[in-house]
Amino acid sequence: MVVREIKRQLVIIGGAEDKDGDCLILREFLRRAGGTKAHIVILTAATELPREVGENYIRAFQRLGAEKVRIIDTETREDASSSTALEAIENATGVFFTGGDQARITSILKNTKIDEAIHRKFSEGVVIAGTSAGAAVMPDKMIVEGDSQTNPRIEIVNMGPGMGFLPGVVIDQHFSQRGRLGRLISALLQEPADLGFGIDENTAMVVTDNQIEVIGEGAVTIVDESEATHNNIEGILKDEPLAIFGARLHILPHGYKFDLRTRKPILQNASIADDPVPVGSSSSQFVKGQ
Amino acid sequence: MVVREIKRQLVIIGGAEDKDGDCLILREFLRRAGGTKAHIVILTAATELPREVGENYIRAFQRLGAEKVRIIDTETREDASSSTALEAIENATGVFFTGGDQARITSILKNTKIDEAIHRKFSEGVVIAGTSAGAAVMPDKMIVEGDSQTNPRIEIVNMGPGMGFLPGVVIDQHFSQRGRLGRLISALLQEPADLGFGIDENTAMVVTDNQIEVIGEGAVTIVDESEATHNNIEGILKDEPLAIFGARLHILPHGYKFDLRTRKPILQNASIADDPVPVGSSSSQFVKGQ
Repeated sequence: MVVREIKRQLVIIGGAEDKDGDCLILREFLRRAGGTKAHIVILTAATELPREVGENYIRAFQRLGAEKVRIIDTETREDASSSTALEAIENATGVFFTGGDQARITSILKNTKIDEAIHRKFSEGVVIAGTSAGAAVMPDKMIVEGDSQTNPRIEIVNMGPGMGFLPGVVIDQHFSQRGRLGRLISALLQEPADLGFGIDENTAMVVTDNQIEVIGEGAVTIVDESEATHNNIEGILKDEPLAIFGARLHILPHGYKFDLRTRKPILQNASIADDPVPVGSSSSQFVKGQ
Repeated sequence: MVVREIKRQLVIIGGAEDKDGDCLILREFLRRAGGTKAHIVILTAATELPREVGENYIRAFQRLGAEKVRIIDTETREDASSSTALEAIENATGVFFTGGDQARITSILKNTKIDEAIHRKFSEGVVIAGTSAGAAVMPDKMIVEGDSQTNPRIEIVNMGPGMGFLPGVVIDQHFSQRGRLGRLISALLQEPADLGFGIDENTAMVVTDNQIEVIGEGAVTIVDESEATHNNIEGILKDEPLAIFGARLHILPHGYKFDLRTRKPILQNASIADDPVPVGSSSSQFVKGQ
């Protein structure tokens, strides 16, 4: 008897992923959802334009050969407990949260029957994806809204409960494109979470159990606050600038991996990041220091 | 006999410093230049609008009571060896590089007589300041131009020789406001320098010998590459994304200090950042881990 271990699977996208070209990220999601046998549910709760947003994904997934693609649009919490919605989730092999406003996702879906159903499917190994607002909702605490292109301050970010698929971290999206280092740090310093992920546009972090792999055009910027030796969040007021000493910074593009347990990046085709002579890595890769 | 040790003094400003309000940063420069006895030379080489740019500073410094303020505009390398320019530098107690295009500063001034004269005054302890383009030129290798709001890639930044007042580091300006983490990392990975400073607008790092103090509205973001365990710069082409593992990240607002020799931030009114119980720091400051 073969016991297949069930692993959690997430495709967390920084927004603006390619839908008309090679669709690298959507392909990865679809492959994990069963390829041409996939039954995809697109959740448009985040957007006030469910038809336009949803149809882009229907077109893309149908072009890639998904067996079934349907939109579940939920305008109200009642919608989110309808038998149609629940049945769609029950039959889904992949669930995709579109972009829009992340507060709409949580206010409409959180603690409804559909939320419960999605979490059950997730625990059974069904892949969940989200882009932009749909990425923001992945942790247990999410960035509800905030200012870009500014230094860290408490007032620049509002936090709220997320959908809880990847608890214990903070996620931000459109990261490089909108200059959100200050926002990510502001969120991180306000939460018990000490691991922050800033995902660029057309870039995704693909979570398989406790391993993350980066795919796409840009990079995932990881800020690990666990080794930081000082911050001033307890001492300051909302509009005063935050300080942090000695956080770890990793910037990981396509093909790089990160282990959520060890909190370390992993060299492409290699073992552990900190190995002085990484096994199996390209000889042209530069490994510095110890 | 009292032997006074001569210390290097720099005021390196991230651009858009206040000139009409409390002028915190310009005050600090002026104080270091001798206060009301100061003789200030404003170098407008960076800008094609020397009159407009220069007059803003004349007005600000005169309002703060500087004894003498004059603009030296150098359009050509010949201008930069004129006796007027040299005499002005000879009598200056503070030299200020305005914003504009940093390539103009180096192409017009570098290796001229005025460059030599400014360096001699600098070595004698005269304070040198620069804002925006005038900040960019401070290291020996400068960011000539580059893209903001993108992940690190070789192609997004052009490096060139700087004026060399603060060798061995990389400086970027308008840092948070223009989302320049990717640009700073791209510059850092291409240079032997492994310490990068991203200075926000209306914010300055004030260098006294080997100590930096941050003043102003935003923060200085410091990326220390020296502990990084991996990067991929040797293995990739110009348009491919850069990776880095384990750089140190410090974000220091007003009042925080950084020691260039130990490469460590210093707690406000305290000894060393890594002290578990910082001496003399506010009891409300949070010190995490070891």
